[in-house]
Amino acid sequence: MNPKRGFASDNNAGIHPTILEAIARANVGHALAYGSDPWTERAVARFREHLGSHVDVHFVFNGTGANVLGLSALLKPYHAILCSESAHINVDECGAPEKATGCKLVDIPTPDGKLTPALVEPRIRGLGDQHHVQPRVISISQSTEMGTVYTPEEIRALADLAHRHGMYLHMDGARISNAAAALGVPLRAITTDCGVDVLSFGGTKIGLMMGEAVVVFDPKLAPDFRFLRKQGMQLSSKMRFVAAQFEALLTDDLWLKSARHANAMAALLAREVSSLPKVRITRATQANGVFATLPKELIPRMQEHAFFYVWDESTSEVRWMTSFDTTEEDVRGFASRLRELLGG
Amino acid sequence: MNPKRGFASDNNAGIHPTILEAIARANVGHALAYGSDPWTERAVARFREHLGSHVDVHFVFNGTGANVLGLSALLKPYHAILCSESAHINVDECGAPEKATGCKLVDIPTPDGKLTPALVEPRIRGLGDQHHVQPRVISISQSTEMGTVYTPEEIRALADLAHRHGMYLHMDGARISNAAAALGVPLRAITTDCGVDVLSFGGTKIGLMMGEAVVVFDPKLAPDFRFLRKQGMQLSSKMRFVAAQFEALLTDDLWLKSARHANAMAALLAREVSSLPKVRITRATQANGVFATLPKELIPRMQEHAFFYVWDESTSEVRWMTSFDTTEEDVRGFASRLRELLGG
Amino acid sequence: MNPKRGFASDNNAGIHPTILEAIARANVGHALAYGSDPWTERAVARFREHLGSHVDVHFVFNGTGANVLGLSALLKPYHAILCSESAHINVDECGAPEKATGCKLVDIPTPDGKLTPALVEPRIRGLGDQHHVQPRVISISQSTEMGTVYTPEEIRALADLAHRHGMYLHMDGARISNAAAALGVPLRAITTDCGVDVLSFGGTKIGLMMGEAVVVFDPKLAPDFRFLRKQGMQLSSKMRFVAAQFEALLTDDLWLKSARHANAMAALLAREVSSLPKVRITRATQANGVFATLPKELIPRMQEHAFFYVWDESTSEVRWMTSFDTTEEDVRGFASRLRELLGG
Amino acid sequence: MNPKRGFASDNNAGIHPTILEAIARANVGHALAYGSDPWTERAVARFREHLGSHVDVHFVFNGTGANVLGLSALLKPYHAILCSESAHINVDECGAPEKATGCKLVDIPTPDGKLTPALVEPRIRGLGDQHHVQPRVISISQSTEMGTVYTPEEIRALADLAHRHGMYLHMDGARISNAAAALGVPLRAITTDCGVDVLSFGGTKIGLMMGEAVVVFDPKLAPDFRFLRKQGMQLSSKMRFVAAQFEALLTDDLWLKSARHANAMAALLAREVSSLPKVRITRATQANGVFATLPKELIPRMQEHAFFYVWDESTSEVRWMTSFDTTEEDVRGFASRLRELLGG
Repeated sequence: MNPKRGFASDNNAGIHPTILEAIARANVGHALAYGSDPWTERAVARFREHLGSHVDVHFVFNGTGANVLGLSALLKPYHAILCSESAHINVDECGAPEKATGCKLVDIPTPDGKLTPALVEPRIRGLGDQHHVQPRVISISQSTEMGTVYTPEEIRALADLAHRHGMYLHMDGARISNAAAALGVPLRAITTDCGVDVLSFGGTKIGLMMGEAVVVFDPKLAPDFRFLRKQGMQLSSKMRFVAAQFEALLTDDLWLKSARHANAMAALLAREVSSLPKVRITRATQANGVFATLPKELIPRMQEHAFFYVWDESTSEVRWMTSFDTTEEDVRGFASRLRELLGG
Repeated sequence: MNPKRGFASDNNAGIHPTILEAIARANVGHALAYGSDPWTERAVARFREHLGSHVDVHFVFNGTGANVLGLSALLKPYHAILCSESAHINVDECGAPEKATGCKLVDIPTPDGKLTPALVEPRIRGLGDQHHVQPRVISISQSTEMGTVYTPEEIRALADLAHRHGMYLHMDGARISNAAAALGVPLRAITTDCGVDVLSFGGTKIGLMMGEAVVVFDPKLAPDFRFLRKQGMQLSSKMRFVAAQFEALLTDDLWLKSARHANAMAALLAREVSSLPKVRITRATQANGVFATLPKELIPRMQEHAFFYVWDESTSEVRWMTSFDTTEEDVRGFASRLRELLGG
Repeated sequence: MNPKRGFASDNNAGIHPTILEAIARANVGHALAYGSDPWTERAVARFREHLGSHVDVHFVFNGTGANVLGLSALLKPYHAILCSESAHINVDECGAPEKATGCKLVDIPTPDGKLTPALVEPRIRGLGDQHHVQPRVISISQSTEMGTVYTPEEIRALADLAHRHGMYLHMDGARISNAAAALGVPLRAITTDCGVDVLSFGGTKIGLMMGEAVVVFDPKLAPDFRFLRKQGMQLSSKMRFVAAQFEALLTDDLWLKSARHANAMAALLAREVSSLPKVRITRATQANGVFATLPKELIPRMQEHAFFYVWDESTSEVRWMTSFDTTEEDVRGFASRLRELLGG
Repeated sequence: MNPKRGFASDNNAGIHPTILEAIARANVGHALAYGSDPWTERAVARFREHLGSHVDVHFVFNGTGANVLGLSALLKPYHAILCSESAHINVDECGAPEKATGCKLVDIPTPDGKLTPALVEPRIRGLGDQHHVQPRVISISQSTEMGTVYTPEEIRALADLAHRHGMYLHMDGARISNAAAALGVPLRAITTDCGVDVLSFGGTKIGLMMGEAVVVFDPKLAPDFRFLRKQGMQLSSKMRFVAAQFEALLTDDLWLKSARHANAMAALLAREVSSLPKVRITRATQANGVFATLPKELIPRMQEHAFFYVWDESTSEVRWMTSFDTTEEDVRGFASRLRELLGG
């Protein structure tokens, strides 16, 4: 096996060596299953250091599970979730939110993947009308599926809007580390301090083998989360191995170093290719994703060099994702190959 | 951390060293997510060597996920699942099968955790009556939650009963390795060869960090399983790390060695304690679980020595589970401590 | 069409003439749809006269709808409903409760269709354990599917048990009029005064064309019922015609007269046949159902005379239901024909 | 009670006298419940005369029930329903389709409530991709919620599109009688002959007390519909009274006469007001709905005269619906009052 790296997705990367060591270190003796173990206790404590001593933290297997369960805690089936049209929960989870919660997703077109109060407010309607689903949650992705990042002020504005209407703000933070690193702020500055109610904290894309955390900022919102998690098929028996990974991620700024690196590689890639003829960067490169258009016929040839996905067939727009293990050589080699093909 | 081992559950054990090595070895370069990787291909091939070249194999996160998704593939919401009253799906999954499938579970009391045609047949009723749920699946656990094991003939009889009524046989094989080892037969002898339709193949309890596989013996039964899995929140992005574990488990008889060892430790424990006064083995020790009654006041003191769960408070019946890493010293030390307390 | 009457079910009867007149009288001009009409207002007022000025009343189409929605108001998907094994919600609703609520039904065998604290209490277990569904509702049928009737004291005891555990008492009152008539008490004596939390108040079986009411005794329990009803497909647009029927039913004791008559006819039937040889009344005839065994070969011949259903094939037990329009001649003719066949 | 009539909705009208007589005539003796009665048999036969001898017909309570169950028969939870943004199933059913089917609704903006292949085809995407819901049903309303009517050719084009992709065409025919009357074609010309797969045939809005029918054009599509209906809480016990209404509706062209009349009243109303200053007819008046803008301050005063709903607050657009019992006097009186207020 050739240890090749591409730009397909940050989940194509493997396990950060420090995380893998943490798994190995946790592999000692017996531990009570389902989270009654010291690793889980320590990992939760780490989360509380970052996000506030009052938060509840629940580990789950994957991002879809984190999103669906976090949303479930806030919803009854006649509620609606307001989200961006490009949101992962709307596009990439095979209808899991609808199936699990029974709720309608109201998807809102955006120019850059980011909701704003101006976009959302007109969709908060039909309140109290028994014929209409009742808007209950605004869900945003940080960073977004289009590689953009919400500022703390933008998040706060959406949280305020939600709370004014008796609604909640949910954040899909599959790439929250990248967002915080991009903004240069601590994790709490874009969550706790902005009024986020429930957060999916991403682990897998920042270097875990697998594992996400649902953070409930006001535990009164979800006193029964453990039942939702078990019934939702997201309770790991050997929980210590999920928890140990998060403990490592949140220790010595591993999350931040990894995110900064991935972001820097994206910025480098954007710089390297932006000057090339016939290549156009199509979206702001704010986190670890680069979006660009390039000549259609070059796409398969570049995919041979290092794999990535086409984002929009109709415009030949592609998406390049970087990860904790992307190297400068990867980026420069990729740009160089592209330059070569363009020049050919 | 003291590397203590107890008898609480086989999921209190950690990761088998060989499995952990396999994870580490798979941690190289990038791999396509969601199962489009060579590890998944190889792990599926291993399953086909064991169970037949025609089977479909889908990796999922945990046992509840495997059971629920395997059942979902066979059911519409007006169907019923017939299972033992003690079945994991009935007792220990927080209603996940009902929530996900919408179906009723018809639970049938058994003396030993095992269904029989005589127990099941009277519950196959109301067929075609629009007021009644329609029996569709018989679900059995191999080995059972009571430590007993179905013989191939017993499984075949249930499969035949199911098929005669246009129903299916589902097997919760969270401990299928222990069952096959106990019977001294290959895995296919209690699955493929007996008419099992869908199997949850257990990985976690036999030494994986986490991971189970849903095996569909007739792929026509579940052509859309991948959608069920994604919508069911059980699709792992870094799938190679689940697959690599299964590849290791099914290579060089690791599953069999681990199961034999756990079973042998259970047999040893049963032997060691069966002669003690006031201790009574309450169920046949056929796989890796030992059930016994002992003086109520000794239970907490023995739990201090090595933790385990009380199975039935009312009768002071306890359950001792052994695992791949249980040692003879663990067993003898436990029996010895019990002898000491009984003599005291 | 021969205006024949049988003993198959009280829902084989038609519309009580007074009810039909009420429908016709309501058929004047336009009325706002979905319950914003004066008929609905008046019918709700009637209910409040009977059950208390504080209750919420919601009209729905049928008994399954009433049960499912009333239960939905009290449940989250990880809860469990404790009910009699013979309960309509368990046996006759094609799994509608499981499908709509996601909850498990824990069905409890009973000798006579009636739950008791002694039967229920052992099933209130696993509280707080994330692996187990959480008992939340005790559901009883008044009168029961076996023709028996709970006394106010028996209901109170179950309500107290429920409330002690933070649970609720739900009553399937498809035949609540028959029960109150049998006991000789007002409707509130077996509902409001006993601590019932949510009631399905039966209309169809006591002479409506169609219509049931969900009564919520503490409106705080179900502030959002109107959304549950609409999403549950049980909101009638021309609501005035359901409401007008209930208004008529609850006026001038029509419910009581109809129920007394049906009960009297059942009592008469039981008396008439109980002295016949080879006929055995198998259950207490407390409301409008008579259960009896008779020679198997006579069943089809009696069904030709007046149709009824076999309750238990294995014991040749049959069920005879009487209704508001059963006549003494119907009963005597039936008994006479049975006598004739027995004597033949 | 003043027998006032307004223009709020066709479901504000009462029961057509002929339909009410049919209910009264059916009120004789006992009849087997749940559809095993001669009225149901005859009503189904009537449907087959109109739509083809091969169709299956299932009576249900209301339009939401008809839509949800008809869709359920075609869907698994990972499927998607493509519909107009203004569709009743998308806007007015409080999320019932999502709750009952688990499916995502993909709503498509339209200028006039009508889908076209050009609008739909780009939304048929992600086929076979496990991350995406799988498009399965195109659902159209005939006539639409905006008062427009699909021609047979337009329906056929959508059916062909659906079938080319292995999908189905569902029609919400809550006002199908008005559509057929408007087009001057028999019912089959816009259903059977166009490739519609499942139809909700509206009864309530065309003069029934309550009742809709789900028509399955290829019975192989829904062999298990009776279970869906019972589990979906839409099975009426005294079914004869629903069936008798449909029998009357489909006899002697009552459906057609009623629809023609309602449509004519809408046309008259549109003509009467279209010449008024400051009143603008905003949509084609093709069936029994008239949409218009008028000076905002006049709306409440006209609502006092005869009630109706505002369709779009932001533009002062109102909706006036006519029904079988709307009279010329109603229309002229309304127009006259409006003229008076405008002149004032």
